[in-house]
Amino acid sequence: MALIVQKYGGTSVGDVERIENVAEKVISARDAGHDIVVVVSAMSGETNRLITLANQISERPDPREMDVLVSTGEQVTIALLSMALNKRGYPARSYTGGQVHIRTDNAHNKARIMDIDETKVRKDLDAGRVVVVAGFQGVDEQGNITTLGRGGSDTTAVALAAALKADECQIYTDVDGVYTTDPRVVPTARRLERITFEEMLEMASLGSKVLQIRSVEFAGKYNVPLRVLSSFEDGPGTLISYEEQTMEQPVISGIAFNRDEAKLTIQGVPDQPGVAYNILGPVSAANIEVDMIIQNVGADGTTDFTFTVHRNDFQKAITILEQISKDLGAREVNGDESIVKISLVGVGMRSHAGVASTMFEALSKEGINIRMISTSEIKISVVVDEKYLELGVRALHGAFNLEQASGK
Amino acid sequence: MALIVQKYGGTSVGDVERIENVAEKVISARDAGHDIVVVVSAMSGETNRLITLANQISERPDPREMDVLVSTGEQVTIALLSMALNKRGYPARSYTGGQVHIRTDNAHNKARIMDIDETKVRKDLDAGRVVVVAGFQGVDEQGNITTLGRGGSDTTAVALAAALKADECQIYTDVDGVYTTDPRVVPTARRLERITFEEMLEMASLGSKVLQIRSVEFAGKYNVPLRVLSSFEDGPGTLISYEEQTMEQPVISGIAFNRDEAKLTIQGVPDQPGVAYNILGPVSAANIEVDMIIQNVGADGTTDFTFTVHRNDFQKAITILEQISKDLGAREVNGDESIVKISLVGVGMRSHAGVASTMFEALSKEGINIRMISTSEIKISVVVDEKYLELGVRALHGAFNLEQASGK
Repeated sequence: MALIVQKYGGTSVGDVERIENVAEKVISARDAGHDIVVVVSAMSGETNRLITLANQISERPDPREMDVLVSTGEQVTIALLSMALNKRGYPARSYTGGQVHIRTDNAHNKARIMDIDETKVRKDLDAGRVVVVAGFQGVDEQGNITTLGRGGSDTTAVALAAALKADECQIYTDVDGVYTTDPRVVPTARRLERITFEEMLEMASLGSKVLQIRSVEFAGKYNVPLRVLSSFEDGPGTLISYEEQTMEQPVISGIAFNRDEAKLTIQGVPDQPGVAYNILGPVSAANIEVDMIIQNVGADGTTDFTFTVHRNDFQKAITILEQISKDLGAREVNGDESIVKISLVGVGMRSHAGVASTMFEALSKEGINIRMISTSEIKISVVVDEKYLELGVRALHGAFNLEQASGK
Repeated sequence: MALIVQKYGGTSVGDVERIENVAEKVISARDAGHDIVVVVSAMSGETNRLITLANQISERPDPREMDVLVSTGEQVTIALLSMALNKRGYPARSYTGGQVHIRTDNAHNKARIMDIDETKVRKDLDAGRVVVVAGFQGVDEQGNITTLGRGGSDTTAVALAAALKADECQIYTDVDGVYTTDPRVVPTARRLERITFEEMLEMASLGSKVLQIRSVEFAGKYNVPLRVLSSFEDGPGTLISYEEQTMEQPVISGIAFNRDEAKLTIQGVPDQPGVAYNILGPVSAANIEVDMIIQNVGADGTTDFTFTVHRNDFQKAITILEQISKDLGAREVNGDESIVKISLVGVGMRSHAGVASTMFEALSKEGINIRMISTSEIKISVVVDEKYLELGVRALHGAFNLEQASGK
């Protein structure tokens, strides 16, 4: 008998029929002898409906009141799911974030969980009840309702699992697991049985939308095994956990890509200490997040500095960079919005050499020019022209044999 | 500077535009120098939408979860109204029933308020804020969300006014006050400037739907002056308070009527001690509420027993009565569903004789046959044929000169 926290997102509870379907899934786990805590999001569309109401009143509604408003979305779902369970003879109790003391800081609309008092939940579990908790919300020290921001329901589930020392935190979504890459790009992409927290973090930060980064970080920090499964079909999903010594690691777990990047270059900057700060300081002061950074020093004592930003920030960044260029006496500024980033992710890279050269070879065979390269311990990213995205991902998927199940 | 609790019902906050209108009304009172606590209901239609969702899952949804569900309705309104006030530069804070500790018993769906901790509200008022509280809801001792049942928002407002020792509790509705009788029946019906708690209670229990009976009882018990006003037009409304010695009382304040009654008679019951109990015991055991009761003893040692019930309970009551008739050896049972009750209400009756005879005379002049009569200290009710309702009410309205303002 295990203690399992299950989380169902907005699509999984999108209408009454789907909520009944979730009730059946909960009951299957209950009948298998497990203690179950369920975390649910608002029914899909509900949060947007509420935001629309608020925006009819004000373009910038009071953040405290915004949280009071949107937190009703999950409250509706917990009540309906508990009704569905009770109707089927499975005693269930719903709780808002405030009722189970999900204590957060007071950053309305994007609060962070500080602490959970799990005694109430534990008591209900001991009494044989299913506990249904509203995701995405909590209360600050003064008892004000807060929300964790979009996607926060995953974080609620993981935080509850950590507080309860649950055996597993299961995130039900509309996909049946984490794939080697996006199956829409590579039809032979394969569901992974397992993946490590580190790999999942890289995948998530590189644009794979299966899980929220914060919830993966949280799960890793408290060592809560996470499982991604489908709400709509049965299957084991993908387990995200720490690397086990006995686990035979494949070199590469997956290929992530990101279409939202844009590249900026400032050329011929007089090379002197502090040049990176002089360039990136004003960019970050404008709240623009910088992803990859490359600096090359030329023979003429000047340097070329290239970095990528989110495509939405491109115009703003170019304007800032042109001012900087003048201030620093650089030669010129140019940018490119039609680029993408492709990344190989795998903890196996740590112990395997030659990953980079296999990657570069595969891309070169297809005539794909690499514009930027950046590496970390378990990831190699390249920037290429947008038009090469599908070709590049497929070439790499084949080169590393990802369509074949390996030790994972 | 006074402390005023204002309550706006579902129609008054039916859409965003109306919520903005309520914000303007609150601001007028604030600008006049008053401290304001606002109690709001769910936007009209919202509670029904939520109940429909629940009924899609279960015909008899779990009562605890029903309260979790429907209490979101008011939570949406408090957030939107607070946003509208904040946008206009009037600091406001919303609170759910739980957040301001509106403690109730644990009778889900029809809970009663036990206690309110007003310290949080007081602190906000002292800080110059408008406090916006969700009506109709509270929490029990264990922190479970409860609701007071339909119309409970009036009770919330009165209870808050009592706890805060407010100078006045203003109930905003879609009518501009309490009338001498229903203006749809008597076009010359007149808005009353004042009415006493006792009169209002009689009017409400007789079918005048302006205020919920429980809120009037509550206001009377804690001596909270109540005022009924219109959300949609300006005007002083009707003040409901205790009778003042200096107030010159008219004999009659108003005429209430009730179309929902049905009459049952059991004839020729052998007259013996306990006959009333033998008849009404089984009726009340079947959860049927009995209104008027009349018993006549005939010369032949048998008695006729007549009473009225809600028209919805008529068939059930007839069936029970036929069984009783057999058991007691009565002669026959008959009933009439096409009757109505008309009542004169007025504290002035206490000191004025002759009200009943004026009433009977007015009805008789119109050829209206009285089927039953029942009196209390401040009320005379008669049962007449349904078809005479309008004629009877108009005749009485004229006979007591209600279209002319008197001392009130």
